[in-house]
Formats: sequence, structure tokens, C-alpha cells
Amino acid sequence: MNLQLLFTTIENLVHLTGDQKEFLSGVLRQRKVKKGQFLLYEGVVQRYVYFVAQGLLASYYTAMDGREHIVQFAIESWWMSDMNSFTKQMPAMFNVKALEDSTVLELPFEHMQVVFERIPQMERYFRIITERGLITFQQRIVQNNSMSAKDRYVLFQQRFPNLQLRVPQKFIASYLGISPEFLSKIKKELH
Amino acid sequence: MNLQLLFTTIENLVHLTGDQKEFLSGVLRQRKVKKGQFLLYEGVVQRYVYFVAQGLLASYYTAMDGREHIVQFAIESWWMSDMNSFTKQMPAMFNVKALEDSTVLELPFEHMQVVFERIPQMERYFRIITERGLITFQQRIVQNNSMSAKDRYVLFQQRFPNLQLRVPQKFIASYLGISPEFLSKIKKELH
Repeated sequence: MNLQLLFTTIENLVHLTGDQKEFLSGVLRQRKVKKGQFLLYEGVVQRYVYFVAQGLLASYYTAMDGREHIVQFAIESWWMSDMNSFTKQMPAMFNVKALEDSTVLELPFEHMQVVFERIPQMERYFRIITERGLITFQQRIVQNNSMSAKDRYVLFQQRFPNLQLRVPQKFIASYLGISPEFLSKIKKELH
Repeated sequence: MNLQLLFTTIENLVHLTGDQKEFLSGVLRQRKVKKGQFLLYEGVVQRYVYFVAQGLLASYYTAMDGREHIVQFAIESWWMSDMNSFTKQMPAMFNVKALEDSTVLELPFEHMQVVFERIPQMERYFRIITERGLITFQQRIVQNNSMSAKDRYVLFQQRFPNLQLRVPQKFIASYLGISPEFLSKIKKELH
């Protein structure tokens, strides 16, 4: 189990002792998923929060119109969860699917509280990354109503230059809330 | 300064000692705002996070179409902030306005870190309420695309029965992303 990326990512925000890292290693489990495989289905309770050690995940839901809407992407060093499902152990609103062969580290719900008790810095770490997640959703709500699709695409490219190259265009279109055809048109205009 | 509601609200999630409450009292400041007054303007850096001791606040932004979109309401015991502006000390995306004469407790950015150092439970408290905030935004994004306006209104009534009676209809319509006329039509159908 390669924990180096996880520890580096966490230690960008808080310091961990050797003992704490060892404890974390004990509660995490590595899992490999193939491209196209699911880590979570709508309606099922999410037992784990996932840290992406390698690969690419997407969460999405199916809207009234039958179309799939991307909620979030996650590449190396990002976390992925249906927060409502995980924290309240309720049925999930989202599917989570691997868009590439991926390796994730699973942190199970039943150990989360113990992690916070044993490693108070993890409370801070998750407070900060949850704040950042909240900010991303607030910004998306605002941007969807106050920026043109073209400007949102340019912003997406700037914020996530690595995603741009790895995620199929139709998923980027879905994330931006536009059709793949409209995204093609925007890309032509920008060239 | 009436801190009872604040302490009760916090102690629903974490325990505070007498010393910690006293410390918190020292960093908070009470502020009264009249109906219609602003606590934050778009483009200005938010120096405080606000706890509503009494009254009703709304955060909103102006969209491309010139219409104001409600992001969040906050009544007694709720917190209000432009998270991006507050945590990064960047210009705000939102306006925050009092919809009733209100009393808020201000927690200044420059004391936030000290609060976390002195009262580790506040780290947990803010982690949990930030998770809840994130969940609310995730649910709104899903609901806006996967539920009819009528169902979203019914859900709004169920989740926030108190808001329903206090917030002008045009703001509820804005929160739901529909026109006031359409909300009137929905309400007639439901009666």
C-alpha cells in the first residue's frame, strides 16, 4: 500500500507524527478499480470516503431528463465522497465511477470518529478540505448563473489543467452543464 | 451581549468549558443591523463570519441577466459567510443583507486561528457545520436538475417551516430558481 501521496497531501496542511501515520495506515485499505467500475451507486449507503492514490473518479447523478450530470471529478490526491451519504449513513444521491483504472485508499465510516479522537489534526485537515469543497460548490452555483459557458470552460481549463487532458469531452460538458456539441463549438471558437 | 443561543447551538455538537466560553465571549462582538442593511457587499473582503442571534439574513449575487439570486438564508442559530472570501480573505462573490432587523455575533478572521488553537472542539464544530453546508449545496445542485419546481417548494417548506413564514415570496422564488409568478401558481395548485 503506497501511502506516500496521502501523507504528503495531508502534511501540506497539518503535521502528523510517525505514530499517527502508523495508526492511519492501520485503518486504511487499498482498493483497485478498473475503468468503468463503480465505487458507489445511487441509493446505496456510502461506507467509505475515498482518497485517489492513482487514477480518476467521477461522481454523477441521473436527472429528470434522464441525462447524467457530473458532480465532481477526483484525480490523484483528491478525496471523493457523497458527503450526505457518508456522514449520515443515508442512501447516496450520487454514483461514483472510475473513469480510468484507479487505486483508492478507503477510510471506513466506523473508523472516522476514532481517527479524529486519535489524531486531532485530522479534524483540522478535514475542516479545511471541506471548506474548500463548499467553496467550489458555491462558486459553481454562482458561475452557472453569472458566466457564459465559454467563460466557464476557460476557467475550468485554468483551474484543472490536468483534468482537461484526461477526462472525455462529454463528461466535461456534463460538468459544465452544457451539451457535448456546444462544448465542441466553444473549443473551435477558442482555437 | 446575549451569548446563550450561541453556546447552546455549539454545545449541541461539542462541549465547551467555562474558560473556553469566556475566551469566545472575548473575541466576539455583537452588532445590530436594520432591515435592508448590508453586512457584506460583492467585491469586498469579508472580515467576519456571522452568527445570527436574532433576525434573518440572506446572501445573494447578481447574475448575468441582472436578477438577484439567493444563495442562502440564515435565521437564529445559523451561521452566514461567503466562505471563499472569509477563509482566503479575497473579494466576496455574495452580498449579505438583513431581511429583518437583526442581531449578529461577529467572529473576526484574525481571531479564528486563535479560537481553533485555544478550543480544539471548535475545529470539530466547524468541521461538522461545514460538512452540513456542503451537503446542502450538493443537494441543491441535484434537486435543481432532478426535481420539479413544485417538489422543490414542498421540500423547502418541510425543511425550513420557519423560513416559509418570514421570508418574502420573491426571495423564496429566487432561492428556488423560479419566478415569483411561477411560485404563486405552484402555491395555488397546492391549496
